[in-house]
Amino acid sequence: MAIKFYIEKELKGALGRAGTLETPHGVIHTPAFVSVGTKATVKALTPEQIKSTVAEVVLANTYHLYLEPGAERIKSFGGLHKFMNWSGPLMTDSGGFQVFSLGAAYGKELSKITKITDPSQMIAERSLDSETPRLATIGADGVSFRSHIDGSLHYITPEKSIEIQHNLGADIIFAFDECTSPAENFRYQEEALERTHRWAERSLEHHQRLNLENPRGLTSVPALFGIVQGGREESLRKRSAEFIGGLDFDGFGIGGSFAKEDMETVVKWVNEILPKEKPRHLLGIGEPEDLFMGVENGVDLFDCVAPTRNGRGGTLYTSKGKVNIRNAEFREDTGPLDQDCQCEVCKNYSRAYLCHLYRAHEMLGGTLGSIHNLYFIINLVKHMRQSIIDGNFKELKERFLAEYNK
Amino acid sequence: MAIKFYIEKELKGALGRAGTLETPHGVIHTPAFVSVGTKATVKALTPEQIKSTVAEVVLANTYHLYLEPGAERIKSFGGLHKFMNWSGPLMTDSGGFQVFSLGAAYGKELSKITKITDPSQMIAERSLDSETPRLATIGADGVSFRSHIDGSLHYITPEKSIEIQHNLGADIIFAFDECTSPAENFRYQEEALERTHRWAERSLEHHQRLNLENPRGLTSVPALFGIVQGGREESLRKRSAEFIGGLDFDGFGIGGSFAKEDMETVVKWVNEILPKEKPRHLLGIGEPEDLFMGVENGVDLFDCVAPTRNGRGGTLYTSKGKVNIRNAEFREDTGPLDQDCQCEVCKNYSRAYLCHLYRAHEMLGGTLGSIHNLYFIINLVKHMRQSIIDGNFKELKERFLAEYNK
Repeated sequence: MAIKFYIEKELKGALGRAGTLETPHGVIHTPAFVSVGTKATVKALTPEQIKSTVAEVVLANTYHLYLEPGAERIKSFGGLHKFMNWSGPLMTDSGGFQVFSLGAAYGKELSKITKITDPSQMIAERSLDSETPRLATIGADGVSFRSHIDGSLHYITPEKSIEIQHNLGADIIFAFDECTSPAENFRYQEEALERTHRWAERSLEHHQRLNLENPRGLTSVPALFGIVQGGREESLRKRSAEFIGGLDFDGFGIGGSFAKEDMETVVKWVNEILPKEKPRHLLGIGEPEDLFMGVENGVDLFDCVAPTRNGRGGTLYTSKGKVNIRNAEFREDTGPLDQDCQCEVCKNYSRAYLCHLYRAHEMLGGTLGSIHNLYFIINLVKHMRQSIIDGNFKELKERFLAEYNK
Repeated sequence: MAIKFYIEKELKGALGRAGTLETPHGVIHTPAFVSVGTKATVKALTPEQIKSTVAEVVLANTYHLYLEPGAERIKSFGGLHKFMNWSGPLMTDSGGFQVFSLGAAYGKELSKITKITDPSQMIAERSLDSETPRLATIGADGVSFRSHIDGSLHYITPEKSIEIQHNLGADIIFAFDECTSPAENFRYQEEALERTHRWAERSLEHHQRLNLENPRGLTSVPALFGIVQGGREESLRKRSAEFIGGLDFDGFGIGGSFAKEDMETVVKWVNEILPKEKPRHLLGIGEPEDLFMGVENGVDLFDCVAPTRNGRGGTLYTSKGKVNIRNAEFREDTGPLDQDCQCEVCKNYSRAYLCHLYRAHEMLGGTLGSIHNLYFIINLVKHMRQSIIDGNFKELKERFLAEYNK
């Protein structure tokens, strides 16, 4: 097996659990927050700085690395770990979310892909029911799309996604899926879900074939997580959890573009069905209240760009809620960003200095802000883990959120 | 005494020497390259990363810190060391160079101050002999100028510059001077030099007064360096070296906006006259060939923004000359940036990864590039120091420059 997962302690009367996930590059203590390193770098941080945030695992992005510098190139360099100088556990997503970003959601709020700035490089296609230009067209076999960098045409199938991810060489990889928009109707959600299920089977089959061919033997092959979809529809989410949960995956992702109020019910529906003994990753979620919700409902792994994106922008987490450190009130504030935080930033710098760096547009601001925010979020989930073991999760949740939302 | 300077070994038949400069915050082994931290941050680097470049000393900028966040504010925070979390030796310049940048050279190639982007905030003044708008007006008593940030009006005298620098609290500070443009005529150069000499006396006098009032006692007061000016004129440079060298300064800066071909003669004229037992700082100079020239001719300290500015831009120093790491040739290059370099970047990353970071506009590129470039330049000067002690400076210079310029 590529990974081993042990449940150490369960939350009484809820789905939550504390566990350990062993990978070829080290142990992840779950529940855990995964730092996002989209383009083979956690933005603005060196690997030493990532480690100083008590991060145990990094997630890189298949779509971005496939386009630049290219997965075969990274393979020829000895894989992603060596390329980016990160010796700990690594994950790659499947590129499925980018299908969504470049397809139905392109140009809308939900998309996370930057638009092409030179319109002459973009060949827009239109969906039947929308006036939004699309860069991606979804077919039964896969997705054709144009690069958001240079407009070049690409075609990704489940087999291709798995091949790219094997070339990248992370410890945990994901099946290729379609992430739908909550704005789509039930019929489309159902169609998309059926496609995602076929793609899951094909991803798994191709993964197993590649593993058998792997000259390094089965100890160093990646683990494959299947992704549960189904939007906000109870019937679809449950059908998906049963179908994906019944396949021979090493773990599971819970995908989707969530409205905040739907998230908890969706996670519950899914985790009540998924096989208990395998790890579950709630994709793209990372705000404190959502992390408590996810942990309580049996999620083992989370990832989100929010801590680093907010960190670069000057929106910093504290135990009393988020602050915009640029605000004039912090110019004279010689105290640490968060009195209760043990990170390198809170130990060594004042709010006034951070405020100065952001106001002066100094890169160090984004670096220190990212270190603090990652530490804050990773450490918060670590505390949740410890509270499950100590039997006081509910108390921690109430105490933290009361202070955080005050 | 605020500092102690010892000469350990002299270069045979030349002015160069290896020494140690003791400051209240640690020892600087000279000759040494000083990292520039303009706004109380060496751009893109944490203090730990600065230390990893084997840097012993950082130079911050009086003009920028006076405007933002303000020198009194920094004093109230416990001084610049604490504010920026740098525990080693610190210097501040006098703001004189900025007088030059905002005055005669503003808007021209030689200026190093970014232009105001909102023209409505700029109230331009014109000099008599030029059509270039000026933000600064030089009088006998001091300089009035408008902030390049918000257009607000300020007036700096020698006394004010020294007071600002005492508030900032660096270990070594500089007298207030006027840096002229090489384009000015002899008459102007002579006038400016006389002004600089009066300002030097006033700076020294005010410094001594503040030192006597210093409640911390004379062991922790800053050292003051006087600045020699005089453009490219032999008579003026020699006059300035004699005058400034005759005052009770702790060391000396050699200022000026140099044409490359004038630099060596100017440094020689000056260092043959300056008192041998005090340290000399060649201001704003940092390219390898200029560092060899300076060390050979008796310079003990250098500073320059080039290593970090080039580092952020992707122009990286190697023993075979500078490379633009963005170039397509490096995309497949799995070797280290510089085979002979022992920095953290060359030990841990490939040229291909660096190339990828810069092409993907990732902040980590600028950070790693700055670490390497600073290490390269600081370490090169360290090697020069060792070669003076070992008696093979000329061999090092010939070998290095032959390889570097090949």
